[in-house]
Amino acid sequence: MNHLPEEELTMIPGGSLITATPEEGRSLAMMIARHTIHNIQPDLDKLVAGRETYATDPDSLIAASQVVAIEFQTIAAANNYWK
Amino acid sequence: MNHLPEEELTMIPGGSLITATPEEGRSLAMMIARHTIHNIQPDLDKLVAGRETYATDPDSLIAASQVVAIEFQTIAAANNYWK
Amino acid sequence: MNHLPEEELTMIPGGSLITATPEEGRSLAMMIARHTIHNIQPDLDKLVAGRETYATDPDSLIAASQVVAIEFQTIAAANNYWK
Amino acid sequence: MNHLPEEELTMIPGGSLITATPEEGRSLAMMIARHTIHNIQPDLDKLVAGRETYATDPDSLIAASQVVAIEFQTIAAANNYWK
Amino acid sequence: MNHLPEEELTMIPGGSLITATPEEGRSLAMMIARHTIHNIQPDLDKLVAGRETYATDPDSLIAASQVVAIEFQTIAAANNYWK
Amino acid sequence: MNHLPEEELTMIPGGSLITATPEEGRSLAMMIARHTIHNIQPDLDKLVAGRETYATDPDSLIAASQVVAIEFQTIAAANNYWK
Repeated sequence: MNHLPEEELTMIPGGSLITATPEEGRSLAMMIARHTIHNIQPDLDKLVAGRETYATDPDSLIAASQVVAIEFQTIAAANNYWK
Repeated sequence: MNHLPEEELTMIPGGSLITATPEEGRSLAMMIARHTIHNIQPDLDKLVAGRETYATDPDSLIAASQVVAIEFQTIAAANNYWK
Repeated sequence: MNHLPEEELTMIPGGSLITATPEEGRSLAMMIARHTIHNIQPDLDKLVAGRETYATDPDSLIAASQVVAIEFQTIAAANNYWK
Repeated sequence: MNHLPEEELTMIPGGSLITATPEEGRSLAMMIARHTIHNIQPDLDKLVAGRETYATDPDSLIAASQVVAIEFQTIAAANNYWK
Repeated sequence: MNHLPEEELTMIPGGSLITATPEEGRSLAMMIARHTIHNIQPDLDKLVAGRETYATDPDSLIAASQVVAIEFQTIAAANNYWK
Repeated sequence: MNHLPEEELTMIPGGSLITATPEEGRSLAMMIARHTIHNIQPDLDKLVAGRETYATDPDSLIAASQVVAIEFQTIAAANNYWK
């Protein structure tokens, strides 16, 4: 098994939901979504094997973007929508 | 690889969730949803290849519209529902 | 291409999330959901072609009704639940 | 076409999200979910044709119950959770 | 038809969203999710027939757990997160 | 039947939604999601049988990560986003 390095398994990279800007908040949402998957499947070879499948399948891309949207709801609320 | 231009990869176009009107907020929701997909799959050729598939499949269209609905929840809350 | 008329592409018909009654709020949720799909696929012929498929498939109907439910959450909050 | 009667098409039966009890709120959530589907597909024969399919398919039942869960979130919030 | 007993059809068992502990709140979320399905399909034989299918299919289990997660959001909010 | 031990069936491990850090909150979200599945399917052999399927299927991984995202929304709100 080609185990992912430890930093790819941190569930909340940076340890906080607070970010300086919406753009950084969105990056965090994407990282949190990815790291969740890393924690369920920490074998890099299996992740890479699945990458081509989902990254060229519109339905998978839509599903992945929905997870990011949900994570972002939480982060945006945490930052009071950067108002 | 036919890489998307940088402006198609900005995750929060305009850098803010605040918009003047609900219509602009909805446009932003659609752009954010699209740009998330661009960040997962930045190869324009692969995106174009999938376009015909999902844009004529009712289930894919419903799924895509759900992502926009979720993004819009966040943006509407950020704008206090434009009240 | 049989392009939808402009009024079918307005993303927030009426330009506001505020409605007089829950019934009108629900109508707005349905319209917003439909117009999102119109913006992703503005070719009326392709929409009509998909209509028979999804409108007789229980899973598609359930998926479509979920999108309306999510849009309605936003509209109901905007109207303080018409209390 | 065997068109559903008008009362099956009211989107918010009773015209309000406010109910006396959580049980009534849940009933309303189920009715709203059903009536959304009625509005998308108002032909009773087509609804009945799909009924056997989805009501014996666990995945369809799970999907349908999720829509009710989302509608109930809105109704519960409208009623301040009947506290 | 092997009709479920009446108590399996109560939509909000106990008639309230308020519980003493998060654990009880979670139990309630699971019961509400199950009873929703009972109300859509009250024939015990058909439910039992589908049980083996979904309870050994990872995707069905994930989908079912998502419904519980959504019901729990409502219950947790109702209890002010048991703070 | 190879029944899971009791501690794998606790629905809210630790009995509280409050955690010291976002990282611990995320761990809790993952545990709650897993334990929900344990409660629906408490036979370890059946869970292990499904593990290989879903942990190498990108769509299943995305679906599982969505459930974690929803659980985390609740936990993050309970902790006032650890602000």
